[in-house]
Amino acid sequence: MSALKELKERVWRCNKDLPHLGLVIRAFGNVSGIDRSEGLIAIKPSGVIYEDLTVDNIVVVDLDDNVVEGKLRPSSDTKTHTHLYREFPEIGGVVHTHSTYAVAWAQAMRPIPIMGTTHADLLATDVPCTELMSDEMIKGDYEKETGKQIVGAFTSRSYIDTPMVLVAGHGPFTWGETPEKALYHSQMLEELAKMAALTLQINSSTPRLKKTLVDKHFKRKHGPGSYYGQD
Amino acid sequence: MSALKELKERVWRCNKDLPHLGLVIRAFGNVSGIDRSEGLIAIKPSGVIYEDLTVDNIVVVDLDDNVVEGKLRPSSDTKTHTHLYREFPEIGGVVHTHSTYAVAWAQAMRPIPIMGTTHADLLATDVPCTELMSDEMIKGDYEKETGKQIVGAFTSRSYIDTPMVLVAGHGPFTWGETPEKALYHSQMLEELAKMAALTLQINSSTPRLKKTLVDKHFKRKHGPGSYYGQD
Amino acid sequence: MSALKELKERVWRCNKDLPHLGLVIRAFGNVSGIDRSEGLIAIKPSGVIYEDLTVDNIVVVDLDDNVVEGKLRPSSDTKTHTHLYREFPEIGGVVHTHSTYAVAWAQAMRPIPIMGTTHADLLATDVPCTELMSDEMIKGDYEKETGKQIVGAFTSRSYIDTPMVLVAGHGPFTWGETPEKALYHSQMLEELAKMAALTLQINSSTPRLKKTLVDKHFKRKHGPGSYYGQD
Amino acid sequence: MSALKELKERVWRCNKDLPHLGLVIRAFGNVSGIDRSEGLIAIKPSGVIYEDLTVDNIVVVDLDDNVVEGKLRPSSDTKTHTHLYREFPEIGGVVHTHSTYAVAWAQAMRPIPIMGTTHADLLATDVPCTELMSDEMIKGDYEKETGKQIVGAFTSRSYIDTPMVLVAGHGPFTWGETPEKALYHSQMLEELAKMAALTLQINSSTPRLKKTLVDKHFKRKHGPGSYYGQD
Repeated sequence: MSALKELKERVWRCNKDLPHLGLVIRAFGNVSGIDRSEGLIAIKPSGVIYEDLTVDNIVVVDLDDNVVEGKLRPSSDTKTHTHLYREFPEIGGVVHTHSTYAVAWAQAMRPIPIMGTTHADLLATDVPCTELMSDEMIKGDYEKETGKQIVGAFTSRSYIDTPMVLVAGHGPFTWGETPEKALYHSQMLEELAKMAALTLQINSSTPRLKKTLVDKHFKRKHGPGSYYGQD
Repeated sequence: MSALKELKERVWRCNKDLPHLGLVIRAFGNVSGIDRSEGLIAIKPSGVIYEDLTVDNIVVVDLDDNVVEGKLRPSSDTKTHTHLYREFPEIGGVVHTHSTYAVAWAQAMRPIPIMGTTHADLLATDVPCTELMSDEMIKGDYEKETGKQIVGAFTSRSYIDTPMVLVAGHGPFTWGETPEKALYHSQMLEELAKMAALTLQINSSTPRLKKTLVDKHFKRKHGPGSYYGQD
Repeated sequence: MSALKELKERVWRCNKDLPHLGLVIRAFGNVSGIDRSEGLIAIKPSGVIYEDLTVDNIVVVDLDDNVVEGKLRPSSDTKTHTHLYREFPEIGGVVHTHSTYAVAWAQAMRPIPIMGTTHADLLATDVPCTELMSDEMIKGDYEKETGKQIVGAFTSRSYIDTPMVLVAGHGPFTWGETPEKALYHSQMLEELAKMAALTLQINSSTPRLKKTLVDKHFKRKHGPGSYYGQD
Repeated sequence: MSALKELKERVWRCNKDLPHLGLVIRAFGNVSGIDRSEGLIAIKPSGVIYEDLTVDNIVVVDLDDNVVEGKLRPSSDTKTHTHLYREFPEIGGVVHTHSTYAVAWAQAMRPIPIMGTTHADLLATDVPCTELMSDEMIKGDYEKETGKQIVGAFTSRSYIDTPMVLVAGHGPFTWGETPEKALYHSQMLEELAKMAALTLQINSSTPRLKKTLVDKHFKRKHGPGSYYGQD
């Protein structure tokens, strides 16, 4: 099987998983993956519900947003995905959902504060929330500008260590080395968003987790010296 | 298959979907569809639970509420449905549910504020909430008056662009070009209602989404120039 | 099949439905039914999880709490059930659960205010909450005293029109003409409890539904002149 | 089948149950069990998702944390489990999860107040929450220190009567005579955590349940004179 065919299959499977993981209803979400050697991106077609999705209708585009393969129109969010692939050179997959709790934080325009080790097992910072886009950006090349807005939130943090963002007023985007890891980040983000909302409901003055504990958990799982999981 | 038979089948299938979509428990909800050329409406029978529902016991009524076909009594909400069909000439389906979050907003007698793009993908306004009915209306032809109360909420907005309403103290009604689209609107309304409640829990002073962003998302999906989905 | 055998089967089936309806976890709930002509009550055995429950281990007791049939010990709540059967002569079934939202209201020691028509379709009053039991009652014949505490909440309201109660600090009991109707009331109570909690979260000053609307909905479904459902 | 083989099977089955009970997502949780006669502990391997788990990859360690059997690395939380087995001599199983509501209370760093009989059926006290660990503990032998922090919360209460704890900023640990009972405690803890959060949302000044009622329910199920369940 060609590398592109395999990528399409993996992207198809991740898209099919979105509703099973409770992250989307109807067609509100999309997964893409990139073949870096060819510069080709496999992505969900626009507006197709997950049960109707086949490997064959996964669309392939290049890094300049040209459709290279597939009869259907790619996701309306394609230009956001391609912008992230251009600007974040080490990522291999991107996921966008409208999962309920992550959207609620994005609508509230609040970063998700890091208050526990479940969060720190995944990332060592708050889940950032972008600024609301300016009217010029919205009226311009909107989906590309969304990508630029996301990248703008990473000028002073690492997109590798913080593989997720809330787009203000919109919802979450996550990424990772592979489409599967990006999907994992979307699933965990939704759980962190729910835990954080409940935590603040129980104790509205819950502090952020202290740095030593954040670092301990993050480093158990990430980087040299990590000792979680199998080698 | 006759057009009426086909309509009955579609209405039956949409009613069967109500519990699978988590929108109703027991018999609390009903879907109808209209054949505009004949002026005939297919609707769920009253009080029948969804698992017992067959195509044959879908009831057919005319626009004056007369039963034309079927041995069972039609939904107790039939006169609300027929009033909407008379007053909203471009709709083909109506759905009424008691879905949990939409009912909570209706009971709270609050419109659902538009705070994000999930909402704006569907409609460009708040989800309106009717006034509470007067004692005269309640004691009169109650279900028809419910329809009139709904129509009264649309004097200054388009029922096509805003295909849903909360009836104060009661619950949601949605509609659309077809029964399937009306059902889609009920499913999305419940999700929007949940997202909005959570958003205000996280940040009680969340502002409405700005108009440029509302328009951008609404127009991506609706009207000339829309570019979401396949043609 | 004898009347008692049939009653045991129905009670068994209702108990098996408790976890499917999301009303209980583990063994936290029980359904009973009565054969009024014989004065015999079929009830779940104590501490048996629902998946292990067979028709044969449903226990039969008389109205004086004597075990008449069955090898297992009856539910530890049996004396509450029998007290309700003695004091509420028109009921045929009783259900006790620890369903999440109903328990939350019981723990909060608050009646569930009637704020919408979903509630009024079922009962025309708040869901009452008992007083907290006195130390004497608790240290005495506790389960029978629980029954007496429930009956005490119905001195000025009808147990037929209001087929449910919250026992303060404990949880819900519901009843009805049959075990199946009592179970239906438990399912609806949990939904009403959830809707009410969400309603007050959205608008903490939500008023009670006005009497004309309460009466309209209650009478659509109950008593002479009702026109909901099939005859 | 040898005792150790049987223990591995039981521990495997309990780990497999974690996602079915809704207590974990991905690999966020672990169950262990001990064979006291041999001083051997069977525990989940680190980072393996539940669907991939086989009896053969359950790891066996001794009370000094040495791997005795198994090719995979044991759970990164192993030293917390072994510390509990050393300090709590009457327990036979330990469960750690990141279940949503229990984590929310742990992040809020609040004990779960005992407000109802569902809670009192299980334990007669609040669910304790540890102090936040000091930087020295975090930077030291972290997982063992977590165990010490837990034991420190039981200087003035019985680990047998209160078979659960919230580790501040982290999440719940539960234990019991057997792995199955420890798992039961994790399931009930999550339910108690949810009920308590909802109770305080409905009535933020809900008092603790009075002692007579706590004792009544706890003693119905525990110790001499208990009369719940079958003998």
